[in-house]
Amino acid sequence: MSKQIKLGLSMWRMGYHIAAWRHPEVTPTGSMDFRHFLEIAQIAQQGLFDLLFMPDELAIRGSDNPPGAMQRQSNGAELEPITLLSALAPATRHIGLVSTGSTTYSEPYNLARQFLSLDHLSGGRAGWNVVTSWGKEDALNFGHMDTPAYDLRYERAGEFVDVVRGLWNSWDADAFLRNQESGHYYDSQKRHVLDHDGKHFRVRGPLHVARSVQDEPVIVLAGDSDEGREIAARSADIVFTAKQSLEDAQAFYASVKGRLAKYGRASEDVVIMPGIMPITAPTRGAAQAKFDRIQELIDPVVGLAALYDRLGDLSGYPLDGPVPEPKDPAFRSRAETIWRFAQREGLTIRELYRIQAAGRGHRVVVGTPAEIADTMQEWIEAEAADGFNIAPTHLPAGIRDFVALVIPELQARGLFRTAYEGETLRANLGLTRPKPR
Amino acid sequence: MSKQIKLGLSMWRMGYHIAAWRHPEVTPTGSMDFRHFLEIAQIAQQGLFDLLFMPDELAIRGSDNPPGAMQRQSNGAELEPITLLSALAPATRHIGLVSTGSTTYSEPYNLARQFLSLDHLSGGRAGWNVVTSWGKEDALNFGHMDTPAYDLRYERAGEFVDVVRGLWNSWDADAFLRNQESGHYYDSQKRHVLDHDGKHFRVRGPLHVARSVQDEPVIVLAGDSDEGREIAARSADIVFTAKQSLEDAQAFYASVKGRLAKYGRASEDVVIMPGIMPITAPTRGAAQAKFDRIQELIDPVVGLAALYDRLGDLSGYPLDGPVPEPKDPAFRSRAETIWRFAQREGLTIRELYRIQAAGRGHRVVVGTPAEIADTMQEWIEAEAADGFNIAPTHLPAGIRDFVALVIPELQARGLFRTAYEGETLRANLGLTRPKPR
Repeated sequence: MSKQIKLGLSMWRMGYHIAAWRHPEVTPTGSMDFRHFLEIAQIAQQGLFDLLFMPDELAIRGSDNPPGAMQRQSNGAELEPITLLSALAPATRHIGLVSTGSTTYSEPYNLARQFLSLDHLSGGRAGWNVVTSWGKEDALNFGHMDTPAYDLRYERAGEFVDVVRGLWNSWDADAFLRNQESGHYYDSQKRHVLDHDGKHFRVRGPLHVARSVQDEPVIVLAGDSDEGREIAARSADIVFTAKQSLEDAQAFYASVKGRLAKYGRASEDVVIMPGIMPITAPTRGAAQAKFDRIQELIDPVVGLAALYDRLGDLSGYPLDGPVPEPKDPAFRSRAETIWRFAQREGLTIRELYRIQAAGRGHRVVVGTPAEIADTMQEWIEAEAADGFNIAPTHLPAGIRDFVALVIPELQARGLFRTAYEGETLRANLGLTRPKPR
Repeated sequence: MSKQIKLGLSMWRMGYHIAAWRHPEVTPTGSMDFRHFLEIAQIAQQGLFDLLFMPDELAIRGSDNPPGAMQRQSNGAELEPITLLSALAPATRHIGLVSTGSTTYSEPYNLARQFLSLDHLSGGRAGWNVVTSWGKEDALNFGHMDTPAYDLRYERAGEFVDVVRGLWNSWDADAFLRNQESGHYYDSQKRHVLDHDGKHFRVRGPLHVARSVQDEPVIVLAGDSDEGREIAARSADIVFTAKQSLEDAQAFYASVKGRLAKYGRASEDVVIMPGIMPITAPTRGAAQAKFDRIQELIDPVVGLAALYDRLGDLSGYPLDGPVPEPKDPAFRSRAETIWRFAQREGLTIRELYRIQAAGRGHRVVVGTPAEIADTMQEWIEAEAADGFNIAPTHLPAGIRDFVALVIPELQARGLFRTAYEGETLRANLGLTRPKPR
């Protein structure tokens, strides 16, 4: 049997594309509506996806530059991911439920407890996407003037993950006897007090939640830095990444897998999943037309906002003219690379912001189902990926397309399951070895 | 029409009685099982209860004294309340969902966000029971050597509630335009940046969740101290209390209601709900037999543990003998009142721990449905209560009894609704005036 592709669905507001909410196929109240997410979850589960993934931020990020850009984006009205995934747990049966959780602005005891509770509510399908919350706006909501320094954030994250995993191991699987006759509720020999006393945290435990039926909730990491890769190699079950080229993805893949041995782990203990934004239709022309349609929905001021951080305010220039050479010294160094790219490709301002804004860092792939499957297969076979995190442009249409068109193609090639293998997220991911502690 | 009684259901593990989990009618895995709580929620909603209330602690509390007592209580295996209530939200329709949340060991931005998200998931039925987490064991799970001082905890709580309410008011009800044609997503005039800068917190906002359909989630407080009553008078919609006598309840009721005017609030803006543990059956004898049966399930070592904090270790004395006069000076002062009570009533050790352990502070009422209704009616008419927080001995049997037997009696007297009045928790509670900020 060919190596099986693992699939996640990035469930973000009305879709991952910056103009998703304006698409006529979209209900623009979706980001506050449980039914929107339930429909997406049901389609993804029907498509045998491994997991739903909720990105998260702890603030409305970004400045209003050029003025008016903020109120033209789908900001400010979102359901919080732990509560939303908990609500989805009883309404789903097989699909994994992965929420983002911050190591910078949470307490490990609270986070460990909520994720393990979600895990039980879903019968062993929870996962935690570990983030350190880089946004300055996040910091301002938690009493900080700015984001803590990078090294400090990652040092804290490493210890935070250790504490959470320690708390998840508070009880053995058979600790709770619950013998009504004898009155013996638990076996105190199978209860473990963590007594963690580290640089950032002092946490006694035990956690007052029983052990996960999947041993521990699944840990997801997306750190690209050396520190991030090291934490991933030690503790992650899944690694998310954003890579535009096969070569970059292969290098990242080799780097992460190469670090596992020193933690007593094997290559198959970690699933690497680059992000993809697929736009598909039965013909290439139809797929391209689909993509063009949503690209046209990018409001110019929102497009200019996507360039602002690197090129400054371009609102005084014609959108269909060339990208002006950066003059403001405050932007100069950041502007260099992107301006040269625009020069080389001969892009107008509008063309440039469309490229920048579309995938928000993820690789955009436009093509027929066979073409989408080709690139996925290529990446899997070339050891650039073990699976993919699918980020549809707009929801639920984008996931409906993918499930209807691409999934059967992958199945026909023997690259994707035709039924869920197990009851838990860990089982479906093929992560069957106990994790080292 | 008579004044209408408001009803909450305290949803705690397998029931509020210390021996609940051992009752043959109980499934002892219930505290980790969504279906257990779903069944309870459905029965309570069928009984037209205003709300489900989840008490909470942030640790396994208590010391193992006498040794062996801890592992004979239903400790350590619980679902976390925010995740559990979120899971119950789509499965219920009318009943309020009130979770406890700590002001000492949470961040206001995270707490405000999760409760408002639960509120939207439930269509405006969320409530927050504000606690300051007094347990030393809680402190040890959050990097503290002991619980912060009382005054500090309450000062922080007051500011925490203000910040949360401020964040809940980040957006006007009509702030989100979501105009797909024009690309205008929100009206920035209707977005409010909190910019809170206080003694304990600095929180910028705005919260990235749309405004509640019930204006704000309902706030519940249970502080009995002067500081607690003051925060309640300023911000609470519901006040929980544990009062054994009508006189004490009346005094508390008058004290809280008397503080409202200075905050621009009227008596009907706050619903006062003392706790009751009702044991009912068609005849008084049958009710008493029910109560005796669960009392007999109290394991002696668990009973002794319930006396330990005040009387020290009594495990060397005969259970059916008299309560020994306290000698250990470490226990002397705390022991005085309870020992005198045991002397006066001529209680054995076993009789004393049964009284102490049964209601865990709540008033135990054993009687026919008419007798239960009588005492509830008396308290309502005597301005000792606006409603009650019902804490059944064991679940779901205790709530099934109450709904089958007591609810019809209250309805027959015109004291309780025969259908939900509104769609939101606030509407059902009759809290229709906008809250002052």
